Amino acid sequence: MAEHRFVYRDIVQFSDTDMAGIMHFANFFRFVERAEHAFYRSLGLSIVEKKHLLPEGEPVGWPRVHASCDYFAPLRFEDDVEVELLIEEIRTRSLKYLFRVRKPGGALAAEGHIATVCVRKDPETREMRAVAIPERILSKIEVAPPELLQSRAAK
Amino acid sequence: MAEHRFVYRDIVQFSDTDMAGIMHFANFFRFVERAEHAFYRSLGLSIVEKKHLLPEGEPVGWPRVHASCDYFAPLRFEDDVEVELLIEEIRTRSLKYLFRVRKPGGALAAEGHIATVCVRKDPETREMRAVAIPERILSKIEVAPPELLQSRAAK
Amino acid sequence: MAEHRFVYRDIVQFSDTDMAGIMHFANFFRFVERAEHAFYRSLGLSIVEKKHLLPEGEPVGWPRVHASCDYFAPLRFEDDVEVELLIEEIRTRSLKYLFRVRKPGGALAAEGHIATVCVRKDPETREMRAVAIPERILSKIEVAPPELLQSRAAK
Amino acid sequence: MAEHRFVYRDIVQFSDTDMAGIMHFANFFRFVERAEHAFYRSLGLSIVEKKHLLPEGEPVGWPRVHASCDYFAPLRFEDDVEVELLIEEIRTRSLKYLFRVRKPGGALAAEGHIATVCVRKDPETREMRAVAIPERILSKIEVAPPELLQSRAAK
Repeated sequence: MAEHRFVYRDIVQFSDTDMAGIMHFANFFRFVERAEHAFYRSLGLSIVEKKHLLPEGEPVGWPRVHASCDYFAPLRFEDDVEVELLIEEIRTRSLKYLFRVRKPGGALAAEGHIATVCVRKDPETREMRAVAIPERILSKIEVAPPELLQSRAAK
Repeated sequence: MAEHRFVYRDIVQFSDTDMAGIMHFANFFRFVERAEHAFYRSLGLSIVEKKHLLPEGEPVGWPRVHASCDYFAPLRFEDDVEVELLIEEIRTRSLKYLFRVRKPGGALAAEGHIATVCVRKDPETREMRAVAIPERILSKIEVAPPELLQSRAAK
Repeated sequence: MAEHRFVYRDIVQFSDTDMAGIMHFANFFRFVERAEHAFYRSLGLSIVEKKHLLPEGEPVGWPRVHASCDYFAPLRFEDDVEVELLIEEIRTRSLKYLFRVRKPGGALAAEGHIATVCVRKDPETREMRAVAIPERILSKIEVAPPELLQSRAAK
Repeated sequence: MAEHRFVYRDIVQFSDTDMAGIMHFANFFRFVERAEHAFYRSLGLSIVEKKHLLPEGEPVGWPRVHASCDYFAPLRFEDDVEVELLIEEIRTRSLKYLFRVRKPGGALAAEGHIATVCVRKDPETREMRAVAIPERILSKIEVAPPELLQSRAAK
């Protein structure tokens, strides 16, 4: 069964804050990345593939090509945060996520997108180049339905 | 004289990298923020205003309302990086920057935007609320000319 | 009842690693701090005290005066980590913790100490100065027994 | 000529601070690491050796086996910081540094030690193991004289 949505819960740590007393804006992207990686684990995958666990394939990596975030409310130390991660688009060689970060109670703190491209190290040039997303990953994910992508209401 | 452009140079540090061997995508925003704060210092300002240095006014702060970045090439340990910061828009209570991050040689590694809102702590509610950008800041900045905003060519 | 030991579990995140493929050595201290703050929450306390929740007292803070760590084994992405936090010493105005970070299976990855001093903002000078640890905290903690402090065996 | 001392200057960035308004204690270690890497560059070396630049040898890495710091004074946003790095001990397979972090004016903010071991990837097991420090590095460094190691006076 393919999945299109994952909810990740975490707490704002002291070292996530800055002298303004709120979570530093760049750290929202770290929270979203943790949600993405927990999503992969929930599918029996890992964002970091290990050669010896892939007898029939080559490991792929996922550098980012786009990241954006709109901030609606600050997050503070010890806030229980919920990150909703939705698959917004699946292309041959790339994925796009929509994410929403919610405060305790469900108020939207931030919303944004991350686009990430599937790459593999070229054995000759040692350079990373975009490749088709392997079936072992593709078979487990699907695009989220429009009503989930469009609605900011807490679930 | 008002300024609309600032170039900040820095080096990619070991702790900016991740296990993929490149600068973590969230750290691009830290580099851009450093450029922004160095720009303020170059204008005789500080992004963190101190009450006792402002006899005629109240300190303002600058929480972010938007951050986005398109990534074109990875940055690696010890890369000498150049961040070009341009003022893209000045509104009554907010600013928008366009930034370009270049690798040694001038190749574009990333381009994006940060929008930030001018806030002041309400003395009664202790809440932050948006206020007009003070004249002490407004008088020193101006919107960059369109040709700078539109051209990605290294200067 | 006073407590002297807390076990905190977390997972090594991608952004905790560096280009050597292991958790950056400075991030061990972040993990230990998270353990400390979770310990406080488990006691019904918060390391960041809020004035309005303290009708009879003044908030205190806990800047560090010492941090040290011996590293025995690297931590890698997605390692399930256990941080054991023990109270090693309680003095009038300061605390000392002993911590042990263990890998999945119990092998010791790191061991160290953090000493932290109880401070309060002087209402006149606005400077932080060391003060006696408030009874609301002192009543909930005690020094760990010597056999726990001395033994590195996994529990 | 061998070197035993390096002075690195940097500025405390907004994202180095936490909600207590001061540089987070773990970030002192990042500053010291930057000083170490700048020291290497000043010697014509890089802490990250590249195979193709080493025709006669194998790259080595430097995982940490110990890090400690005593904190004497907080660092704040935009403080101009000076890190003094001294070589405290050179052993066959490891190095020990003494560092001092000074505030503007020379006041000591922190002092500590980092011990780091020279490792190479075993071509068969792919495990890191300690090896003798290569001559290309050893020939450029020496232990600092005792008077420098013992004196905390600003130079």
